[in-house]
Amino acid sequence: MAGIKLHGNALSTAASRVLAALYEKEVEFELVPIDMIAGEHKKESFLALNPFGQVPAFEDGDLQLFESRAITQYIAREYASKGTPLIFPDSKKMAILSVWAEVEAHTFDPPASKLKDELAMKPFLGLATDFAVVEEFEAKLGKILDVYETRLGQSKYLGGDCFSLADLHHLPIIHYLMRTQAKKLFECRPNVSAWVADITARPAWKKVVAMRAY
Amino acid sequence: MAGIKLHGNALSTAASRVLAALYEKEVEFELVPIDMIAGEHKKESFLALNPFGQVPAFEDGDLQLFESRAITQYIAREYASKGTPLIFPDSKKMAILSVWAEVEAHTFDPPASKLKDELAMKPFLGLATDFAVVEEFEAKLGKILDVYETRLGQSKYLGGDCFSLADLHHLPIIHYLMRTQAKKLFECRPNVSAWVADITARPAWKKVVAMRAY
Repeated sequence: MAGIKLHGNALSTAASRVLAALYEKEVEFELVPIDMIAGEHKKESFLALNPFGQVPAFEDGDLQLFESRAITQYIAREYASKGTPLIFPDSKKMAILSVWAEVEAHTFDPPASKLKDELAMKPFLGLATDFAVVEEFEAKLGKILDVYETRLGQSKYLGGDCFSLADLHHLPIIHYLMRTQAKKLFECRPNVSAWVADITARPAWKKVVAMRAY
Repeated sequence: MAGIKLHGNALSTAASRVLAALYEKEVEFELVPIDMIAGEHKKESFLALNPFGQVPAFEDGDLQLFESRAITQYIAREYASKGTPLIFPDSKKMAILSVWAEVEAHTFDPPASKLKDELAMKPFLGLATDFAVVEEFEAKLGKILDVYETRLGQSKYLGGDCFSLADLHHLPIIHYLMRTQAKKLFECRPNVSAWVADITARPAWKKVVAMRAY
């Protein structure tokens, strides 16, 4: 039973976050597809891996994890000597990385996910987009990206001078939003635009995109 | 300019999270009060510490941080040899701790904060509680606490056998909710109830509570 297994699929933003980390670290793994349309993530066998019934779940030998950002942290630490360094050994540099990883989770992700749902998921499912909601959350995300624009004028990446988990965690939602009208929020800010171009061009992320139908 | 400064006040759940970590680690610090009613957190001097204008902000010498959960992680790592160990040196044990820290941030906190706003903040501000919202979010939080009940039957604390950041991060919101009707959600689950009694009785947390008007 040794080896890494990722339970989920590349259409999930949370599972994609873990896939990106695995490819960056060049560690071998098995992807165990979870059929979410059939409700497989709510069945007993999956709930034994994640009692909250959300993809992804993750196994490394007898270690079982869930929560995508906890999984990427584990991969970055446990496989520190392989592939791209995604965390920093220096305590103070790591603290700055953590600040921007928390910003992604608590400040960027809520409005960005709302826009993803309205502009990408609803059309995909044949539902009507609520453009009043879009306007409200585009304004919110724009203000957040103003802070990113300043930050990315001070350092090449959010967490510091090198690509790290703080950048990587943004990739799945940005992938969706760059295929919607919300891409203008990124494109009209030069530093943000250059950062998006840089991180979305990484070979590890391109491998994740190649696995997706959308 | 050496030394630790925490900018915020004990009424903020996010600042309280950091205060609890500082008292657990027994590190000296200066609390710099921020008058949020006067909008001090939106003024230039504070925005230089946190561009998103939210308390707390934190300084340790020339290191400047924000985002409460990034600050507690830094304190736990940087002052590892002092006070209560709040993180685990073993990589796999640390991964489990991180899972439950992420559960707090993404699964527990959103409905718990909504209940805090309706049941504690609105009455405090003289506004009417929306009991339909309360009912909806009590049901959501109840389901989450069912998973906690199972987890806390397997290990004494959420992150493992010892108290850690995964538990500590819950304290500020639980403090509010235990003074509202939502306390029944915790009290009717024996393992959750014992855990709440244990973590809220910690001397470090009692120091934070003593600093609050509520």
